[in-house]
Amino acid sequence: MRFLQACRREKTDAVPIWFMRQAGRYLPEYRRLRSRHTMLELCRRPDLAVEITLQPVRRLGVDAAILFADILLPVEPMGLKLDFVKGEGPAICPPVRTARDVARLRRVDPEEGLGYVLEAVRLLRRELDGGTPLIGFAGAPFTLASYMIEGGPSKDFRLTKNMMRAAPALWDRLLGKLSVVIADFLRAQVAAGAQAVQLFDSWVGALSREDYERFAQPYSRRVLRAAARTGVPVIHFGTGTGPFLESFRDAGGSVVGVDWRTPMDEARKRIGPGRAVQGNLDPTHLFLPRRLLAAEVRKVLRGAGGRPGHIFNLGHGILQHTPPDSVRAVVDWVHEWTA
Amino acid sequence: MRFLQACRREKTDAVPIWFMRQAGRYLPEYRRLRSRHTMLELCRRPDLAVEITLQPVRRLGVDAAILFADILLPVEPMGLKLDFVKGEGPAICPPVRTARDVARLRRVDPEEGLGYVLEAVRLLRRELDGGTPLIGFAGAPFTLASYMIEGGPSKDFRLTKNMMRAAPALWDRLLGKLSVVIADFLRAQVAAGAQAVQLFDSWVGALSREDYERFAQPYSRRVLRAAARTGVPVIHFGTGTGPFLESFRDAGGSVVGVDWRTPMDEARKRIGPGRAVQGNLDPTHLFLPRRLLAAEVRKVLRGAGGRPGHIFNLGHGILQHTPPDSVRAVVDWVHEWTA
Repeated sequence: MRFLQACRREKTDAVPIWFMRQAGRYLPEYRRLRSRHTMLELCRRPDLAVEITLQPVRRLGVDAAILFADILLPVEPMGLKLDFVKGEGPAICPPVRTARDVARLRRVDPEEGLGYVLEAVRLLRRELDGGTPLIGFAGAPFTLASYMIEGGPSKDFRLTKNMMRAAPALWDRLLGKLSVVIADFLRAQVAAGAQAVQLFDSWVGALSREDYERFAQPYSRRVLRAAARTGVPVIHFGTGTGPFLESFRDAGGSVVGVDWRTPMDEARKRIGPGRAVQGNLDPTHLFLPRRLLAAEVRKVLRGAGGRPGHIFNLGHGILQHTPPDSVRAVVDWVHEWTA
Repeated sequence: MRFLQACRREKTDAVPIWFMRQAGRYLPEYRRLRSRHTMLELCRRPDLAVEITLQPVRRLGVDAAILFADILLPVEPMGLKLDFVKGEGPAICPPVRTARDVARLRRVDPEEGLGYVLEAVRLLRRELDGGTPLIGFAGAPFTLASYMIEGGPSKDFRLTKNMMRAAPALWDRLLGKLSVVIADFLRAQVAAGAQAVQLFDSWVGALSREDYERFAQPYSRRVLRAAARTGVPVIHFGTGTGPFLESFRDAGGSVVGVDWRTPMDEARKRIGPGRAVQGNLDPTHLFLPRRLLAAEVRKVLRGAGGRPGHIFNLGHGILQHTPPDSVRAVVDWVHEWTA
């Protein structure tokens, strides 16, 4: 299984490839299911989550499956209401802003509060039957905290940054609780059969290096360490991490996911030989005509230097209107050109 | 006038300070006017634009006034419809996507198409009467092109990036036209009395360094050179420029505006002694209690190293709910501590 080998920086027969958000709205077979169910139903029904997880594996021939779920699912068993509002994204209610709000948040027994996710993992392992490895995942403490504090997506992270600085003890309690919940959740996914896990710190690019090191990194480190102790490869991904990529790497993880803003050769240099790297084609490149797309794929491969420990991926998730055939073409090229 | 001196890296009696979006919704006196007029009325009526420009000068004691206007105003005389939709931001209609769309765009005689802006500049110079210097501004070619192509704000700049790569000749024609319109507009603002100009490249952080150098920098350079030939200081500001700050600097401008993600000491080092720097307090810090806010202000001042050629500002515009008294406090501190 070349994906797992590459995570361990072992030689592989070809560069492995998978895509963040490889299951999703760009696939007609996903849209058919989505038209009959809410986003939360798709997550909560293991049969549907399994089907959606398998769709891109069948269609694309990728080297890893990633569990279909949402990084915000753990906020529900912690005691908050989660909703997906059409056109606006996720909404969390009530937002978490005071000491009382934080005190009320519950630790989550994953089997009890997120059992449906674990059930999907178990079913998937059976379905995949030793063929394609399965990646589990969770959101990182900073990113989850920002959603909880803002009550949804934010442009400026005003309330989040205010809590960090003006109420650092409260911030520490909130992020401490989140770290425990997330670590427990990842461990449970591994126990259920996930063969690798990825921690998504999607919004961490809103921070300066100093803020990252002080208010995000320590909590991600706890989670990444706990995940590493399970023995499976741990991927640590964030966007906008260019200004503090070394600090991001130092948080942990055996694989560092890089966004498209940092050229792959620079990323490999800054991350160093001790870690594998994952990335980093700009997701918008998948809209290019084939000839131009091929050139961009080659650029990423060249940047990675042909050395072991590169997992081809995008620099962020697949965008909604991406042509599925172009995604498939990239898979085939990467396999063919690196075999 | 310490602001203009600092732009030229001359010694000043204190570090000058102004704020991006210092006129705006966080001020009650602005909201009173805004409740009676649309955004476009406020821009198009010179008497109102003048009043709004002066509001923060009166209240805050800043060292520069910046003309109240919107970077998208030039798209109207170029032949597009501009609207501000509540809760969604600007909308441009029809979007510019084909060779025909680009061919139709008109060159703008600033006195004819944007005369109301120039009239506001002339009135402001009279009102300010040699006291506070007046900054004019425009959006950079990449940022304006992205609004025109996407038809409004975008998260992924998919269509913009696609045109860049898949239709580079078309991109060159569009950005070429924009460069001319923007350069003419800035020159006209200076002729009308603007004592400095700022070029805003707000969305350029969506690009990798290579993309920036290939698809944005050449056009910004044309505009910045044309503006420099007027003899007034030229400020070049962008957000998310950390990964390619040297290339951003090389585009031109006597002052480089830095966002909050790059620490000020690192920014000064990377920008070098040949340019002044402007920035870079995180706008969310203005929500902090005074003691913590003061510490962050000191950190920016310390980072700038007490050397000439620092203009204190935020790393982006003032946010909507910012307490005006905190903004005033920062002005007073910067003046007091550096006098």
